[in-house]
This record gives sequence, structure tokens and C-alpha cells, in this order.
Amino acid sequence: MAGTVNPDLRKERESSSFDPDKITNFLYGGPEIVKRKRELESLALNDPDYDHEDLNFMSNEQQYETQLKKGILMTKKVQKLNLTDAMDILFYRSAVSSDATAFGLHVSMFMPTLHGQATQEQKDKWLKLAENYVILGTYAQTEMGHGTFLRGLETTATYDPQTQEFVINTPTITAYKWWPGQLGKTTNYCVLMAQLYIHGKSHGPHPFMVQIRSLQDHKPLPGVTIGDIGPKFGYNSVDNGFLAFNNVRIPRENMLMKYSKVEPDGTYVKPPSTKLAYGTMVLIRANIVLNSGRALAKAVTIATRYSCVRRQSEMKPGQPEPQVLDYVTQQYKLFPYLAAAYAFWLTGQTMMSVYMTSSSQISKGDISVLPELHALSAGLKALSSWVANVGMEECRLACGGHGYSHASGLPRHYANMTPGATYEGENTVMMLQTARYLMKSYNQSLQGEKLAGSVAYLSGVQPVPAAGRTRNMLDLGALCDAFRHRAARLVHEAAMQLRNERQAGKDQPDAWNAASVDLVKAAMAHSQYFVVKNFAERLTDSRLDSSISAVLTRLCQLHALHGLVTNSGDFLEDGYLTGADIRQARRHINALMAKLRPDAVALVDAFDFPDGILNSILGRYDGNVYQHLLEWAKASPLNKTDVHQSYHKYLKPFLEANRAKL
Amino acid sequence: MAGTVNPDLRKERESSSFDPDKITNFLYGGPEIVKRKRELESLALNDPDYDHEDLNFMSNEQQYETQLKKGILMTKKVQKLNLTDAMDILFYRSAVSSDATAFGLHVSMFMPTLHGQATQEQKDKWLKLAENYVILGTYAQTEMGHGTFLRGLETTATYDPQTQEFVINTPTITAYKWWPGQLGKTTNYCVLMAQLYIHGKSHGPHPFMVQIRSLQDHKPLPGVTIGDIGPKFGYNSVDNGFLAFNNVRIPRENMLMKYSKVEPDGTYVKPPSTKLAYGTMVLIRANIVLNSGRALAKAVTIATRYSCVRRQSEMKPGQPEPQVLDYVTQQYKLFPYLAAAYAFWLTGQTMMSVYMTSSSQISKGDISVLPELHALSAGLKALSSWVANVGMEECRLACGGHGYSHASGLPRHYANMTPGATYEGENTVMMLQTARYLMKSYNQSLQGEKLAGSVAYLSGVQPVPAAGRTRNMLDLGALCDAFRHRAARLVHEAAMQLRNERQAGKDQPDAWNAASVDLVKAAMAHSQYFVVKNFAERLTDSRLDSSISAVLTRLCQLHALHGLVTNSGDFLEDGYLTGADIRQARRHINALMAKLRPDAVALVDAFDFPDGILNSILGRYDGNVYQHLLEWAKASPLNKTDVHQSYHKYLKPFLEANRAKL
Repeated sequence: MAGTVNPDLRKERESSSFDPDKITNFLYGGPEIVKRKRELESLALNDPDYDHEDLNFMSNEQQYETQLKKGILMTKKVQKLNLTDAMDILFYRSAVSSDATAFGLHVSMFMPTLHGQATQEQKDKWLKLAENYVILGTYAQTEMGHGTFLRGLETTATYDPQTQEFVINTPTITAYKWWPGQLGKTTNYCVLMAQLYIHGKSHGPHPFMVQIRSLQDHKPLPGVTIGDIGPKFGYNSVDNGFLAFNNVRIPRENMLMKYSKVEPDGTYVKPPSTKLAYGTMVLIRANIVLNSGRALAKAVTIATRYSCVRRQSEMKPGQPEPQVLDYVTQQYKLFPYLAAAYAFWLTGQTMMSVYMTSSSQISKGDISVLPELHALSAGLKALSSWVANVGMEECRLACGGHGYSHASGLPRHYANMTPGATYEGENTVMMLQTARYLMKSYNQSLQGEKLAGSVAYLSGVQPVPAAGRTRNMLDLGALCDAFRHRAARLVHEAAMQLRNERQAGKDQPDAWNAASVDLVKAAMAHSQYFVVKNFAERLTDSRLDSSISAVLTRLCQLHALHGLVTNSGDFLEDGYLTGADIRQARRHINALMAKLRPDAVALVDAFDFPDGILNSILGRYDGNVYQHLLEWAKASPLNKTDVHQSYHKYLKPFLEANRAKL
Repeated sequence: MAGTVNPDLRKERESSSFDPDKITNFLYGGPEIVKRKRELESLALNDPDYDHEDLNFMSNEQQYETQLKKGILMTKKVQKLNLTDAMDILFYRSAVSSDATAFGLHVSMFMPTLHGQATQEQKDKWLKLAENYVILGTYAQTEMGHGTFLRGLETTATYDPQTQEFVINTPTITAYKWWPGQLGKTTNYCVLMAQLYIHGKSHGPHPFMVQIRSLQDHKPLPGVTIGDIGPKFGYNSVDNGFLAFNNVRIPRENMLMKYSKVEPDGTYVKPPSTKLAYGTMVLIRANIVLNSGRALAKAVTIATRYSCVRRQSEMKPGQPEPQVLDYVTQQYKLFPYLAAAYAFWLTGQTMMSVYMTSSSQISKGDISVLPELHALSAGLKALSSWVANVGMEECRLACGGHGYSHASGLPRHYANMTPGATYEGENTVMMLQTARYLMKSYNQSLQGEKLAGSVAYLSGVQPVPAAGRTRNMLDLGALCDAFRHRAARLVHEAAMQLRNERQAGKDQPDAWNAASVDLVKAAMAHSQYFVVKNFAERLTDSRLDSSISAVLTRLCQLHALHGLVTNSGDFLEDGYLTGADIRQARRHINALMAKLRPDAVALVDAFDFPDGILNSILGRYDGNVYQHLLEWAKASPLNKTDVHQSYHKYLKPFLEANRAKL
């Protein structure tokens, strides 16, 4: 069977309306990048030095060891291959393992923080050691009792001018550092966020460079308590850790002093702006949007391919069981998430490029663009990770029973993606940050200020159109208008709600809290509008080949229409759309799904995930699902022997005693 | 700290408006039952013979062994305690382990199938052996390629009149039996569903009693291939198995012949009615509804208690961090699911009692009630398991980062509940079964027939009320009316859609498929109407104490209003409700949440889950979350040593080589 593609999948590919490579090029930014991506992926996937073991067959401890070994090997290989470009490393690393490997935080947080917040002197001292993996670091911010709210951190760094040292302490159990990746067993250094105290006065959280384990024997240093926080839903190859300090002294020079400073005598020097850190946040959140799109794309790829291989039930008496994807209900489960995966992928890219453009502006000292960028990225991070959460589980359930097996790859992809709704800012808190910016902008516009950027539309209130007009619900312009109108209306309603609560006698914080459900709703609508508009705008790219622009337009229409009918009340409430519009929208969705059906496999192929990254038997490119499902099961640990050892230990004596009693 | 309750939780309990025991009695059916439940639970939880180990710290293989050992011990204890009442056993078993123990399928499927489908002779032969655990069985129906669609099964049982035997075969890989619980390593018998062939003619799937492992040494019998299907999202203590046959012969007497029969000469005798099996299905689905309610109740209990212990962010400058449950957005995440947990709990109970009433009718040969009961139970099973799926994850995410830790108990509860959306009938298929009954009833009513039971409302079409009327959106009668109108309208729309597709030239199966999204929507609305109405009806019980009827009414209002605003388009589309009604509904939700806030902890306490069943550090009754989180982490396997063995194996050589290079 090897090498043969399942005939159902082959037929799907033969009958698609376009060449998936064209969309792959569009998604990744051109044929050269795709070529490079594929080279690097196959370099990783075909390297015999890596054992591409199945982590699902291992205990958590074995997973940790396996990924540590792999992380070390990968680090050496990256050096040997002389990969230095960030994109190259990313492509390579994703193919080495779709699970986290060791040193993730070292690379993504520890070193960037040194780059961004250390003085030149400090960089000279530590960066080379970090780059050469002589010291291994992580970023220790979150505490057991304190997450998104940074000012609530309890760990203290108290300056002692006598010795010119900071004294680090963990005053309570809730002050334990909790969650940092690779902290539990792997790293020997960390950037620690702690409340700075000088002469009894608090100056808020600041970053400190702290050694936590001996470079000789890896034992925790005196006064330092470290451990692993225990098993989790996913990420069980990672030693997320806890960390506590008891009067641990570090030199004054270990505070990262690019912005704030503490002089030897204890004089505190404020940073020039507190908004500078926003830039990095925007980048991280843009990444989460892109990764939400990619994670959803993986799940949709698996479920779509499997839905063409799987045949089930009887549609017409006497005829063979149809492919599951021929059921319209199955299309309705998968195609909207297929469209959403494209939508978030493109949104993430746009955010990246906006960030790149503005970061040069920011580095020149112009931070005027930051508040808007920050607000936008917060909402989009929340929206995309929420939708990916729900969508990936929908894809899993759409695979029936086999979706529940780790052979599908879906439980693991989901468990590894779902923390994105919590880390880097809890989603509801994020939406409320966006809402705060929307309220500010709305009030400015009421005072006659002209708004720019993503909130410009709040300036002009659109009238509700007169009854009786007909509307083409497939027109992307009309759909964008509808989403814009809804967002503007919900921002207005939230502002009214806020005003009413104030007028009813609540103070500002209580009014904000009372209106917060409406505020989240407004921020959600604003974010959805941005995603729909961005999708539509990307389709105006004149370089787009007509064969792919047709199918991408269908996806964009489906994305907008599905958002519209699942939130139809928002559009009906003030009469902007009518019941007839919504019914028209539903019929269009059915028609679009029928048109997308023959292109579904090509559309997921275009995401270009090799099997070694999908890690799914159900989603195999060749569609040979069932024989591999059986082989996989046979290889699982419980099948090492026909009769499990527990039979002799427990079952046999039980059965024999029962027989004897009869 | 032991024995002291977290002061925040203590305050919550002191300030609630009612005694939670009153609601506990209401939920379980009276104080005597609650007393018995608590006795049995504490018997199990305090029995030193059980090691209440943490399965989260174990490999899958260790989990299997642990639960096998526990299952054997529990079976012996149940006999010793002389527990024979099904409810007693259930209470006891849930407290022994909230995860699956061995012999689950033996008790819940194997023995009931023998009871229901074996002749007296067959019962005499096998039931005593099964009851005394001399033979251990499971129920082998699902195949690798065939789930919900029973007629698609491929395993064959071919009658050989010469020897008066059936020859069992697995003709393809997709015919492998796949998923049966305890099949992989534990059981030595099974009831096998196989296609019956006599003289080359197929008679459809029938049940056969088949021995699969030797009673001497537990080895698979000749011609029998058995194994475990490998790791899954949850249920990893269970050896879900695969099973294949190669010309395995069993005596004619091993076909379960209470209904269908095969005579020695091969004459096939049909069963009197094919609908008889529906009764059991209704019972099983009623159980899923109840269990969805209970699983959701567990998640809500954990998240609600933790949200009172957790303090986060700053609502007002300079004031202490508020309890997370004081944020209205947090209430909006949890309270609707609190209400839904109550709603499904009560729905499950109603279904049980309807089943009990009708099963005596059915046993007298009157099966007229079955089609309606079957259709209703299908939709309610789907609705409740879907909502529980989404709601439990919402609860987990509402616990922030700690929700992701297995210390919260939430990932495990979720992974163990989520298959309910797939087993015993895939949810979308279930909704379409309900839809089929709705379409049939709708057409009957068009032809002037008077409908009865849960679909009676389809007979009378409600007019859309004239504009300008005011409506009290808190009135349960008005809310039930709104849900009834929506369901009736959506049934009507789906029927119109079906007719249009037929008129456009599609044949019946294609038209059904094309309209299936609308059909599912209609079935969903019908099921939601039933749940809302049932909740409201249960509140009319005159025995209800006024203190609890007030708070339960709020929950019922919240349940209905939340369903209304999240589906507002359905109510607005034809003008039945107005934008003003929806805005009023939103304001009522806010007000209801504020009223429910002080009762939230008492409302989850009323579910009466002891800590040993909740298995959650975040949800501990005493609220002492943080110190136990730390203790739990310290006990996890990776913390056995300060320096993990992998350091010596991998990390040390890596670090030393890097240092040497510098």
C-alpha cells in the first residue's frame, strides 16, 4: 500500500479548481519562501539523527527527557547548519517537533529580554553566554497568585545600599513564581520580575538577572527553592516550574537597567516612557493571532482529509456510504473554520507588517501609533485564540470517535494551543483593554476629534437604511459595511450603557464593571470587523491569480456570512438587516459550501503542513488512515504482551477465587 | 491550616439567602436519599483499603493497573457490603473513583444485554457466571470504520447448518471491532454485534455471545486477535480494545435469541418488533443528559469556588484586589452554565421518570409512545452534551492558568465527559433523528391531525404579536412562549426549506441533506424549548420551600434569558421580539447575576460533590487552594530529586562542551 494515495483523496485533488501551490505561495509570501520552507522541513524530517518518537506513548517524565535530548540536538544542528535567519530557524524547528522542545523560553523570552532591557555592559556580560548555551534562562514573571495583573506581583527585590545588593524574597505562598517554561528542571538563570523596594519605598515591578542553579552541579543555589509544577492538560514535555527565594542577594548590576536605573546610593531613575514595552507585546500578540490561524488550519486539515476518506451511513437506499464531507452538516462544521483559519492567518500577517512599519517609527521615538496598535492587538489576540479553541474542538468532534484517539493528533494540538487564551494577557482582560481604547476614541469623536486608523469608522455614524431596499449579501463591500455598522452601533451602545450606569450613581470603576459584558461585546465586534475587512482587502492584491482569487473570495464571503448569521441578532436589533437578509445569507452559505466542497482538500493542502508536522493518522496526506491506525495501536505500550502483567497480579487470583466460590 | 475554611469562602456561605441542603434534597429526591448518598460516599472515601492515588501522576499503563486493582477491590466490597440497589451502587462507585474503574462495560452493557436479549436458557447458562465475575464481558459493536450507522457493520456471523455453528469473520481492516471498553486486556467474553448470514442471505446485525480469551491463561483464543487501541484524550485507565476474528466457530446457541432466532436448519425467525430496542436507548440517553448536567455542575463548582478565593487586578485604585467573581464578565461566564447545569439535571430526571412510566406501558406491548420518546431523547442527549462540552471548557478558561493544570481537575473531567457527544449516537445524527420526527409531526398537523406530547405545540401556529406591546421578559410564561414560538417557526422554516429543495428538483435524500443545517437548527430549538419549559414546570412543585424557589426561579430566568440573547436573531427575525425586548433581556440578565452573586457558592455547594469526587485543588470545599497547589506540585514525579537524572545524561555534557568552546 505504501506510496499509494487513497482513491477518494486522489479524486478530490484531481477535481479541484486550482493549483494549491499558488495559494501556498500566497500564504507564505512567495515561491522562494515556500521553497526554502520545504527544504528546511525535509532537512529536519529526514534527518536520521532525530528519533521522531510518538510522545503519546510516553509518561510525562519520558516526554521531558525526550524533548530535552531533542532540544540539545536541534540546538547543535542549528549551529552546524548555520541557520541564523529567524524565519529559517522557525521553519526548521517546527519540523523537528510540533511539540515544545527544551530552551523555548531561553530563545523566545530570556534572550529577547536581555536584548531589549539590558544595558550594553550587561549585554556584553550575559548575551554571549546565553547565545552559546553556557547559561540557560527563562522569564519568571507569573506568580501562583498573580497573572495578568503585573502590579500585583509579590516577589520583592529590596535594595541594600550598604552592600549595593538587591535582596530577593518570596514573602508568601502566592508569591511563588509559577508556570515559567523550563524553569522546573532545566534552566540555571532567569530574568525575574520583582517589586523594587528602595529605602522602604516601592517602585513597581522591575526585571532582574538571577542565577538559580549552580553551574557546577545544577543544584538550586542556597535560598532558592525550585520544582516542576506538575502535570497539565498539555505541554507535558515542558518543565513549567515554581521558584521561591529566601534572602537571596544579587549585585546591583543585576537589575536590567536600560530604562529604569538604581544608582549605587539607592537613587531611583525613572524610565523615559512606560509605553515602550508595548511594542514587544504587540509583536507577541500578532504571533498568537498567526499561530491561532495555523493551529486551526492544522485541525481543519486533519478533519477535512479524514472526512473525505471516512464513509458513513446511507444517504440513498442501496447506494454506497457517502464520504462524510458530502453531508452538508459536516461542511457546516468544517468550512467556516477553514475560512476562519485563512482569515486569522492573513490578520496575523497584516499585524506583523503593521508592527514592522511602526517599529521603525517607534525606534525613532514616535510612539503615537502605539496605543491603537496595542488596543487592536489585544482584541485580535483574544478573538483568534477563542475561535481557534472552539474550532479545534469542533474539528475533533467532527472526526467522530477517532478524533478522541491520540492517533488523530487533535487532542494534543488542542491541548497545546488552548493556553493561548490565557497567556500573554487573559482574553477577557484583553477585550476590555480594547474596549477602553474604543470608549476613549468614541468620546473623542463626540467632542469633534477626527479619528484615524482602525477606529476611524467611529467618527461617522451610519444611518440605518430605509426598509424595503434590497441588498446583495454576497457583496464583500456590503458585508464589510454591515460589520462596520454593527461594531459602531455596539460601541455606541456600550458607551450609553456606561453613561447610564454613571447617571444611576455608580462611580467609574463600578459603572465600567456593570457595563463590561457590553464592552466585551463591542470590542469583539470591532475585532471581527477588522478581520473581515482585512480579508477582503487582501483579495484586492492585483498579483492574485484569478483561479485562486475566485476560491479565496468564496472563503471570505463564507467567513463574513457565517459571522453574520451566528450573530444575526446584532444586525437585526436596530433593523440594519432584515429577516429576509438573514434568510438570504443562509441560502448563500449553503450555495458557497456547495461550491467550496470540491476545493476543500486543495484548500487544506495549500496550508502545506507535512505529515511530520500534522502528526495525525487521520490527516495523513496519502489518506491511508485505517491500516496505519491499526499499526499505531499495535505499537502502543499496553500491547507489548498479549497478556498484560496485571493479569497475573490482580485478575487471575480474582477470577480463580470467583470460580472456586461457585 | 487544616480544618480552617478560607475566610472568603466562609463569608460567601454565611451570606447566602438559603440553606443549600434544601436544594440538595430537591436535586436528589429527598432528605433520605441524600442521607444514604452521603453515608455511601463517606464509606468509600474513608475506607483505608482504597489508595486514593492521583492518576494524573501516572503513565497510562500505571493508570490501567491502578484502576484494575481498584475495580476488583470495589467489586468485592460491594458484595461484602451487600449493596444491591442500583442507586446505592452508583453512589458508592462514584466515590470510589471519579474515573472509570475496571468492569464498567461488564456491568453497564454486557450483563444488561444478556438480561434483555438472551433467552431464559441462555440466561441460566451465562448470567450467574457474569454476576459472579467468573466470566468478564464487554459489548463489541463499533468497528474501526463503522460507528453510529449500525447497518454498516462488516463483521460477519455465517451460519453453518452442517455443524450448527456460526463462523465469525473480520473481512477487512475497517471491520475490526474498535473502542469497546475493557476489551483490550481485561475481558474474556463479549457480546458481539455481527451481520448474520444464512444460506448466503444477510439478515442484518445480531448479537452473539463469544468467548475471546482462555479462562485458563487469559491468552486470546485461536483465530482471535485482541489489543488495546492506544492512548486517548481521556479515559486512559481504560483498555478500549480492538478485536478481529479469523474463522472462529461458536455454537448456534450462542446467538442471543430472545427476539430473532435461527433454527438448527437455518430457518430465520424475525423479531416481533424492531422498535423494542429503542427503550434501552432512551434510558441510556436520559442518563447522558443527567451526566452532562452533573459534569457541568462539577466544573461550575470548581470554577465558582475558586473565583471567590482568587483575587486579581485592581478595580478601584488603592483598594485590595477583588474576588474574581465580583467581575461581571466572570459572572457572565459562569452563571449561565450554573443555570444550565441545573436545567439539564432536572431534564435528565424528567426523562428518567417519563421512561419509567412508559416502560411499564411498553412491557405491556404498547409501544405507541416510543417514537416520540426516542426522538426527544436524541435531541436532548445532543443538546446537553454539546452545552456541557463548551461550558466545561469555559469554566476551565475562567480559572486562568491554573485551570490548565491537572491540579484543577478540569482537564480530566472534560476529557472524560467529551466523548458523550459521540458515543450512543453522534450528536448531529441525533439532532437529525429528532428533526425527522418533527417533520413527520409537522406534516401530520398540516393534514389536520392533532399532535400530542412534546410536539403538541406544532399544531397551533402562534401569530406574531402586534408591534407596540410591552412584554415582561422576566415572566417565565412569556419566556416559554418565546421559546415555543421560535421552535415552531424554525420547524416550519425547515419544512419550507425541505419543500423548496424538493420543488427545485432534488430527490428526498438530497433535499434532506440540503436542508439539514436548518433541520438541526429546528431540532435544537425544539430541545431547548423542552429544557426551558421543564425547568419552569419543576418550579411549580408546591413542596418547594419559598427560600429556594426564589433562587431557583432566578436560575430558570437566567437560563431562558441567556438562551434568548445568545440566539436573539431567531426571535427577532420574524419580529416576534423587538430590539427593545432584547435590550430589556440583557438588562435583566445583569440584574439577575447581581442577585445570584451572593448565592453562587451555596448554589454549587448544593450539588453536594465531596472533595473526593471533585478531585480538584481549585474547587476544594475549604478553599485552601494555594498551599495545596504547592504540596501537590511537590509530590509530582519530576520532583523526586532536585536534579533530574536527565541532567547527567544530556544537559551536563552539553553545558560543559559549550563552556569549553568559549
